[in-house]
Amino acid sequence: MSKTFAGNFFEDYTLGQKITHAVPRTVTSGDRALYTALYPTRFALYSSDEFARASGLPASPLEDLAAFHIVFGKTVPDVSLNAVANLGYAEGRFLKPVYPGDTLSSESEVIGLKQNSNGRTGVVYVRTTGTNQRGEAVMSYCRWVMVRKRDVDAPAPETVLPDLAPALEAGELTVPEGLDWSGYNFAQSGERHRWDDYEIGEIIDHVDRVTVEEAEHMLATRLWQNTAKVHFDATLREDGRRLIYGGHVISMARALSFNGLANAQIVAGINAGAHANPCHSSDTIGAFTEVLDKAETAAPGVGALRLRLVATKGGPDDYSLKNDAGKYRSNILLDLDYWALIPT
Amino acid sequence: MSKTFAGNFFEDYTLGQKITHAVPRTVTSGDRALYTALYPTRFALYSSDEFARASGLPASPLEDLAAFHIVFGKTVPDVSLNAVANLGYAEGRFLKPVYPGDTLSSESEVIGLKQNSNGRTGVVYVRTTGTNQRGEAVMSYCRWVMVRKRDVDAPAPETVLPDLAPALEAGELTVPEGLDWSGYNFAQSGERHRWDDYEIGEIIDHVDRVTVEEAEHMLATRLWQNTAKVHFDATLREDGRRLIYGGHVISMARALSFNGLANAQIVAGINAGAHANPCHSSDTIGAFTEVLDKAETAAPGVGALRLRLVATKGGPDDYSLKNDAGKYRSNILLDLDYWALIPT
Amino acid sequence: MSKTFAGNFFEDYTLGQKITHAVPRTVTSGDRALYTALYPTRFALYSSDEFARASGLPASPLEDLAAFHIVFGKTVPDVSLNAVANLGYAEGRFLKPVYPGDTLSSESEVIGLKQNSNGRTGVVYVRTTGTNQRGEAVMSYCRWVMVRKRDVDAPAPETVLPDLAPALEAGELTVPEGLDWSGYNFAQSGERHRWDDYEIGEIIDHVDRVTVEEAEHMLATRLWQNTAKVHFDATLREDGRRLIYGGHVISMARALSFNGLANAQIVAGINAGAHANPCHSSDTIGAFTEVLDKAETAAPGVGALRLRLVATKGGPDDYSLKNDAGKYRSNILLDLDYWALIPT
Repeated sequence: MSKTFAGNFFEDYTLGQKITHAVPRTVTSGDRALYTALYPTRFALYSSDEFARASGLPASPLEDLAAFHIVFGKTVPDVSLNAVANLGYAEGRFLKPVYPGDTLSSESEVIGLKQNSNGRTGVVYVRTTGTNQRGEAVMSYCRWVMVRKRDVDAPAPETVLPDLAPALEAGELTVPEGLDWSGYNFAQSGERHRWDDYEIGEIIDHVDRVTVEEAEHMLATRLWQNTAKVHFDATLREDGRRLIYGGHVISMARALSFNGLANAQIVAGINAGAHANPCHSSDTIGAFTEVLDKAETAAPGVGALRLRLVATKGGPDDYSLKNDAGKYRSNILLDLDYWALIPT
Repeated sequence: MSKTFAGNFFEDYTLGQKITHAVPRTVTSGDRALYTALYPTRFALYSSDEFARASGLPASPLEDLAAFHIVFGKTVPDVSLNAVANLGYAEGRFLKPVYPGDTLSSESEVIGLKQNSNGRTGVVYVRTTGTNQRGEAVMSYCRWVMVRKRDVDAPAPETVLPDLAPALEAGELTVPEGLDWSGYNFAQSGERHRWDDYEIGEIIDHVDRVTVEEAEHMLATRLWQNTAKVHFDATLREDGRRLIYGGHVISMARALSFNGLANAQIVAGINAGAHANPCHSSDTIGAFTEVLDKAETAAPGVGALRLRLVATKGGPDDYSLKNDAGKYRSNILLDLDYWALIPT
Repeated sequence: MSKTFAGNFFEDYTLGQKITHAVPRTVTSGDRALYTALYPTRFALYSSDEFARASGLPASPLEDLAAFHIVFGKTVPDVSLNAVANLGYAEGRFLKPVYPGDTLSSESEVIGLKQNSNGRTGVVYVRTTGTNQRGEAVMSYCRWVMVRKRDVDAPAPETVLPDLAPALEAGELTVPEGLDWSGYNFAQSGERHRWDDYEIGEIIDHVDRVTVEEAEHMLATRLWQNTAKVHFDATLREDGRRLIYGGHVISMARALSFNGLANAQIVAGINAGAHANPCHSSDTIGAFTEVLDKAETAAPGVGALRLRLVATKGGPDDYSLKNDAGKYRSNILLDLDYWALIPT
């Protein structure tokens, strides 16, 4: 019997199957420090315990995307080790802040299956839930990946496509319990722009850029215990460069978006996401954001913005994402549609 | 209205202006671990809680220079985003140790202004104060930077040059409250040399060298939430190398100085500092120190050394800093004049 | 008097000599986070406080090898600064788990000396003990290094070779106090294989590989406060690459061994170890393990496996270690013989 696990193939998934992902992970202030070192993040709520307390929280939580990466990383051995491509995200809900000392676990349910017409691969849809040590769900999200078949002659399963919302309704967003931004400190947060100041359709070029290095993305990807080979083994490519974990680009772009969105501090939902092109070491990442929608919340002083965050190779040029053929242009790395909370 | 901030220009500063810098930052043991990973530091007071307690402190503080980088980093968006050069430091006072759990904020006052004769740039002098969550000043220092004018036709302000001391008097140094080195453990600290063993004029070659990498200095500079573009964006230079944050060189040289100055554990004051030449990835940093002065303090077993710490590209050769024209030689990276506390 | 320390030479050691190594070190959750970022480790006991508590421990300890590197690092200035080669390890005992907040110190005793026939070098054998802040030994191990003589004419000491066990007996292994794996959670740990499932002589190819970078191994080696020049100073070699600390390869290989040995969580003893060939940046590390022996322990649900962990440059090919001449093949980086604890 082989002791190592080669990962699941398309025919290993069945509709309704529940997968308990291995290796719970306690998060600490060390993870926070590393997140700060890896990404140019400056959101005050995640930088300062004092700012968090003044916002009604007990302490500064781990960045929402750091918690996302940890929950996601646990799913890789079971879901995407044989994935050809990570195709999309939907219905990402951030349900509870994660604090140093919390222990996170992940569980997924197969909610859709569709064999591709070539007979060699299929698409697997899962809904993943991240849970803390009290059994409380801290987040849930759907993603779908294209997975190889082990045996091309294995019979195709019945095609079931999940009914996924194109975007979360603002009313579905969870505001962290106790959050009160009625006395928000705009001098400390870094910018004066509040919910009122953003208009639907507005585009913000985040100006700053970061050139990425092999050592950095590997440190990050290991920190999330994401074991996908393509991120670590240079011998898989002729040029010796590794494929950078898409989540590294998400966190980099989100951190760059501080410049212009310093008060859009909390990621409350992920509506959709596409890793439009691969990112490699020595690429320089830039970012821009388009404001897609605005909504109020029931929490004091807390509004919501629906944002399209776009990461680009080099600086953004004309803010267009696709070419005439409707395909992503080659300089687009990430197209992420998410909800953020911002003081009103 | 543009949502991003392009930084201040020379004409944006007025004498006496006070700037509250954004994004308070809680420091943790994660920052300490990263500082240890980034620099070859071994000073026992900052390595061991037990050594710190035996020295009369409640626990091991964050390294003084780490606290300095955090306080400094906050000033970058307001003071040096459009800086052409960081010209100097003076009157740097370390007033309180910073412990994991403390939250640091920065505030600056404009104390001098001088437009350059070319009419295109000017020099801004600021005094920056770092404060903890109890409102106690943990450090203050002056620095001056050359900043571009937005509009070369803007009128020049009245020239005001601050009256800065060439060096702190020993009597002005703040010894951490409770520090008692009368029972100092020289076996644990790594060297036997005490205050008595150092002579004014003595030069110590610190022997060790470190070749620096892009990933490292970017991790460090982000950890301090320093957002200056030149440190991160390789597309700003033809050779793709980034300019290394001068503070990275300071911390590297100071850590290298352990070998020969293991007991000069506490940085108590910065008298002057010049980043003599730029440092880039793949440079190998060496360091030497000249003993400039010696003084006693009122604390039990605690003396002070005034030291000139010089960082060099490659190993130091003949310990000279300037050429015949009085300019820094091309292999000199840093010339830092500071006070350290050492057991008597 | 020179203030810097050039390290000890062969004639500086005497049989029975005790060396108190400098700079105690408090370990924190920051060290844990960095270990996770540096190595692809996923062992549940070291990832999750909850898993550790369910195993009968008060919290998740620092990885055994991280504690080893810290204890080892302290010995470098006194033992191996002038070492030509690190020749071997024996009788490595892990005696107490190390927890965040513990402060580690190291002490060594010279247990053997043998001048080489060339008269220029000699072999020094030391037994090193790592101690926590309560004075409890947390580990002890022997290693021997080849050290240069300062003066080739210095008289040779009497040759004394210590009587070192080729391997620890299973009965000598220390199981962490309170460890109880009778209710072990195999779903959380990542694999179903238990003690019963492994057979003596079995070989496990760990499948995954990691290409290593300069920045990473320097971060790691500094984190352990290991100051050996060859790891940091690129000017020592013509090609500018630094020699990677052998312990970095040990930790990398051990982390890679998760895939196939996820439940062999605790390193309980090191029987022998050889750094067969040097490792440099851009090498891709793979690993395989051979099961050498099996034993029971007195602790509930806890068995022991004696394992040979081999790190290879590139993927393992035919699992042979030596060539016809009895020398390590050029693709073998590490040959480590150790005991691990695993649920029965």
